Amino acid sequence: MEQRVDFITLGTPDLEAARRFYVDGLGWEPTLEVPGEVIFIQVGHGRMLSLWDAAAMDADVGARGDARGGRMMLSHNVGSPAEVAAALERASAAGATIVKPAEATSWGGHTGCFADPAGFLWEVAHNPGWRVDADGRVVMGVVDD
Amino acid sequence: MEQRVDFITLGTPDLEAARRFYVDGLGWEPTLEVPGEVIFIQVGHGRMLSLWDAAAMDADVGARGDARGGRMMLSHNVGSPAEVAAALERASAAGATIVKPAEATSWGGHTGCFADPAGFLWEVAHNPGWRVDADGRVVMGVVDD
Repeated sequence: MEQRVDFITLGTPDLEAARRFYVDGLGWEPTLEVPGEVIFIQVGHGRMLSLWDAAAMDADVGARGDARGGRMMLSHNVGSPAEVAAALERASAAGATIVKPAEATSWGGHTGCFADPAGFLWEVAHNPGWRVDADGRVVMGVVDD
Repeated sequence: MEQRVDFITLGTPDLEAARRFYVDGLGWEPTLEVPGEVIFIQVGHGRMLSLWDAAAMDADVGARGDARGGRMMLSHNVGSPAEVAAALERASAAGATIVKPAEATSWGGHTGCFADPAGFLWEVAHNPGWRVDADGRVVMGVVDD
């Protein structure tokens, strides 16, 4: 499991308020938005901030408001569903708690989640529509297959 | 304020347990360690994961265990102390709550913190010893002046 964070996800109770702050207020430009669900904003070379509706995040990974990281998750992207499973096994062997086993997602990928020893959430994801160009630009495309 | 995250900080109650997981378990290589205080691990082009002793983090930014992001903080690096103040002003005008006004740090930098509308913590930092090389490698040096 390479030492890499690709996404930082913040579970956000009011996406419109988040949009007013980050997009209207700070002037940050979204890469992709699904109204009422999620806003993706590139925040550096090959990295993305994801403002995700808190209820949707809770439904996906379980309500973690009591966890050390609150409603925050770091993501590590890999190249295939098999690599998702392998990374989760590696993390488990290293002492992580598996929060969500690897499974297919509605958007055509595979993800699983673990909590580190302090309780911080990590997602391991294979996203066939994710690409980082040589200049660091993140492309999030639609999966055709 | 450019759309950029430079550090992801996790306030960690047991640094030795974190070290066993990330360094011994996952095999990730620290860039810099201050025993008992902090472990910095590069996690991509120009980005750093910081495992910070939770008590030290609480002392610096206030205990935020009840905040939405728990003991987690995103950092945005800028080029001067004046830019720290300007970014905090911009964030405040956009609707953020200032958690810690800009101030000099023990390590020769300037930092201030705000919480976004959902309560997630952001640090704005000028770190004279921070440099990102063209290949994305982060150098964290000692400040000589």
